[in-house]
Amino acid sequence: MRPLFAGLALFIAPLLPANPWLENVRAVRSAQQQELIAEYREFCAIPNVSGDQANIRRNAEFIVAMMKKRGIAAELLEGHSRATNPAVFGEVKAPGATATVVFYAHYDGQPVNAAQWAAGLQPFNPVFITAPIERGGKILEWQPGQPIDLTWRMSGRGTADDKAGVFAILNGYDALVRAGLSPKVNVKFFFEGEEEIGSVHLRDLLQIHRAKLQSDLWIIADGPRHVSGRKVVQFGVRGDINLELTAYGPKRPLHSGNYGNWAPNPAHRLVTLLASMKDDDGRVLVPGFYDDYVQFSESERLAMREASFTDEALMRELGLNRTEVPGRSLLEGFELPSLNINGIQSANVGRLAANIIPTTARATLDLRLVLGNDWQRQVNRIVDHIKAQGWHVLDREPTDEERLAHPKLIQVGWGKGYNAQRTPMNSPLARAVVAAVAGSTDDPIVKLPTLGGSLPLIVIEEELGAKIITVPVVNYDNNQHAENENVRLNFLFEGIDTFAALMRLE
Amino acid sequence: MRPLFAGLALFIAPLLPANPWLENVRAVRSAQQQELIAEYREFCAIPNVSGDQANIRRNAEFIVAMMKKRGIAAELLEGHSRATNPAVFGEVKAPGATATVVFYAHYDGQPVNAAQWAAGLQPFNPVFITAPIERGGKILEWQPGQPIDLTWRMSGRGTADDKAGVFAILNGYDALVRAGLSPKVNVKFFFEGEEEIGSVHLRDLLQIHRAKLQSDLWIIADGPRHVSGRKVVQFGVRGDINLELTAYGPKRPLHSGNYGNWAPNPAHRLVTLLASMKDDDGRVLVPGFYDDYVQFSESERLAMREASFTDEALMRELGLNRTEVPGRSLLEGFELPSLNINGIQSANVGRLAANIIPTTARATLDLRLVLGNDWQRQVNRIVDHIKAQGWHVLDREPTDEERLAHPKLIQVGWGKGYNAQRTPMNSPLARAVVAAVAGSTDDPIVKLPTLGGSLPLIVIEEELGAKIITVPVVNYDNNQHAENENVRLNFLFEGIDTFAALMRLE
Repeated sequence: MRPLFAGLALFIAPLLPANPWLENVRAVRSAQQQELIAEYREFCAIPNVSGDQANIRRNAEFIVAMMKKRGIAAELLEGHSRATNPAVFGEVKAPGATATVVFYAHYDGQPVNAAQWAAGLQPFNPVFITAPIERGGKILEWQPGQPIDLTWRMSGRGTADDKAGVFAILNGYDALVRAGLSPKVNVKFFFEGEEEIGSVHLRDLLQIHRAKLQSDLWIIADGPRHVSGRKVVQFGVRGDINLELTAYGPKRPLHSGNYGNWAPNPAHRLVTLLASMKDDDGRVLVPGFYDDYVQFSESERLAMREASFTDEALMRELGLNRTEVPGRSLLEGFELPSLNINGIQSANVGRLAANIIPTTARATLDLRLVLGNDWQRQVNRIVDHIKAQGWHVLDREPTDEERLAHPKLIQVGWGKGYNAQRTPMNSPLARAVVAAVAGSTDDPIVKLPTLGGSLPLIVIEEELGAKIITVPVVNYDNNQHAENENVRLNFLFEGIDTFAALMRLE
Repeated sequence: MRPLFAGLALFIAPLLPANPWLENVRAVRSAQQQELIAEYREFCAIPNVSGDQANIRRNAEFIVAMMKKRGIAAELLEGHSRATNPAVFGEVKAPGATATVVFYAHYDGQPVNAAQWAAGLQPFNPVFITAPIERGGKILEWQPGQPIDLTWRMSGRGTADDKAGVFAILNGYDALVRAGLSPKVNVKFFFEGEEEIGSVHLRDLLQIHRAKLQSDLWIIADGPRHVSGRKVVQFGVRGDINLELTAYGPKRPLHSGNYGNWAPNPAHRLVTLLASMKDDDGRVLVPGFYDDYVQFSESERLAMREASFTDEALMRELGLNRTEVPGRSLLEGFELPSLNINGIQSANVGRLAANIIPTTARATLDLRLVLGNDWQRQVNRIVDHIKAQGWHVLDREPTDEERLAHPKLIQVGWGKGYNAQRTPMNSPLARAVVAAVAGSTDDPIVKLPTLGGSLPLIVIEEELGAKIITVPVVNYDNNQHAENENVRLNFLFEGIDTFAALMRLE
């Protein structure tokens, strides 16, 4: 027998009546709906791709202005290198508070390929849609002042990941103050501008501004709520590192007829290599890949299995007949490191395709890491596997001599990765966070030992010694990192309740 | 012992003194150099991608004008369908001639992706370069009237494939006439506008205009001369058919962390499928792939092996340590059908890559066919192989029901292919062609039983009963079908000699 109710008890907090003060917060944010939405559209219209430094700074300054408007002393935290995207910092002291909590979100976004967005949607021109475009959503002709339906979504890069976090944190604080209430903890704000490029300067920023950032706990507003719509508290994240592979063929593109069964094809070689990395049942075949991960405890595993109760509905929605590993639920899979092909490209397909042997074939791989993994060790395993398949591995373009010396040549590149992080679910601060989030909603909440996604949280633990807990804001079907990204408006506004409550941690 | 000299005798014609009349032809075309180059630049500046019907027609009309300027009665041959790109036709009768020869080239070109061309090169703005850009070639600042170095190249789509054929044929005829000479065969001109999309209406055109096109022999000006630079006579071509594969994943792009070892990745599935089609030694693993091809005769095989004498230099130039099938020369490989990955694409790589599970993964395959193969039968074998790997194969997008019903879904599309064609090397007309080409050059020529590339020649044989022989014009390193396509100018002008000589076949 599956211990259904015993399991539920572990991960769903009891139904609590909403805190009476919360009604006041809700009344305040309802009255401000038009104004908040108008400001958010303006915020999301500023391009925020991490590499676009000029616009990144416009975003940071926009946040400073939003904070000042809310009476929060705000400033930019700069790094040693001029290449650092600034973090936005602010602080509000609570008289008599015994704990200091940093509220974190990131304002930068993933790269965009505007051509891949649906007709009428543009990455940096937020519009309202009735539903996800892929599920038949329509674009609305809305003018400021007209009524807003909170089941609508706002589309655009960053609307969900993760300007929504900035929105929930700043407006959570503001609604609290407008409702005549005060935070019960010292509140610090930290909005990062480099999360989508691996938080390359976060450690540097934490070191430079260590005094300002002293804290007991960081609460991270990022990632999606549960697929059921329930609010979530997460106690860990996976680590992450990307690899760029470039396989080399002939030095110039060749006619596929004149050279077609003579010159080796780099696309064929690359697909053979990639195919060797994972079997049809989703098991990564790279030697040692699963050697050093820390298994879930029984209770963590059970929590994850039970929180996967919507897997079947999700499969239906996504049009999936089976999952990668049959019999293993979505959340149980977060116990393991993963290997994903983010993209692959060689020459052209479809109308642009030509009858050629391409000169190169490229793939981007994403490795997710769990507790026990070390990102550099995991990368080394991939590189060793590639070598074991007979490839000569380079960290740059091959020279002519190298081309002639080796039958299979590949460039493998990677930046700086980071490891996974997990906070114990039963510490006092963790329990207080669970109580606050549970108190901000009428529905049961979901507790997750770890997120599937990644944040560089381990750096915070390493540099500041603070605990870290994640409280997501947005809908799960937000097309995060991809075309047609969107946020459902009621999730934005419910995020205000969540963060108002989290500033009253006891 | 390798019978080296016996072998050479089979494929290299004896050194002959150039025909005395040819000196006159050369003097004429040298005097006209500036004028011919200016006209050719203008011709190559007209975009000629097969699907661009407005510009295609501009090309056809430009050719008609060039023909009229040379005193050739010219007209457009139209098809039944308005979608047909017209062929350009012309005719010049030779008093007392006993044979009628159609001179063929195609004026359409492969698709272009301008972003992939080198800086300063554009597909339809021909410029001179000192050498291939990939080998350090520089763009020249040349003005009309300034001296032209015939070792230069002209870059642009169609400069080599195959407006060069039109150039050689029309100017071959013109130089002959200007030198005070006449063709010895009835000359017909046929310039096709759909070769790069599989000559989809060629059969229709041949049927409609059968009376005009009655002929004993078609001489095709297309493809490259030998890698050694020698002139070539080819007696056959491979057939061709392309396949478009689209593998389906989740209906919307998914965050690779949140769904990364749960939702199946279509890129991983597609690479696994493609990897199953060919082994590391270039052998196609699709069952039946090699079942029905007609092997080369011993003399054909020998000719091919001997003509491959530049394989090592070519490998060095292309930066290849080994070929796909070790121990088999370039030309020997033309005995066999081939399978090539023209391109593969799923989401993005490099700077544009995002941490997602893509919704689709696509690949374009090119199948080359040899004597004995049937294109539809070969396609069926690929489809059967895909099914045998557990895929559900569709000829369109899947429905929601199909997505839920099948673990692996793929769309496989193809157009109309055509089979290979070979003309016996020892027929009287074949011998006359060899003598004419050999007489137009001071170097030995190369005879090839078949080309590696494809032309829909089988249609001509089927519809008109004419023999077919191919006489290429351009340099082998012309980036045909790819970015930075170019033609070496001396090959263009030597093509004039070749085709002047071919119009004096005896």
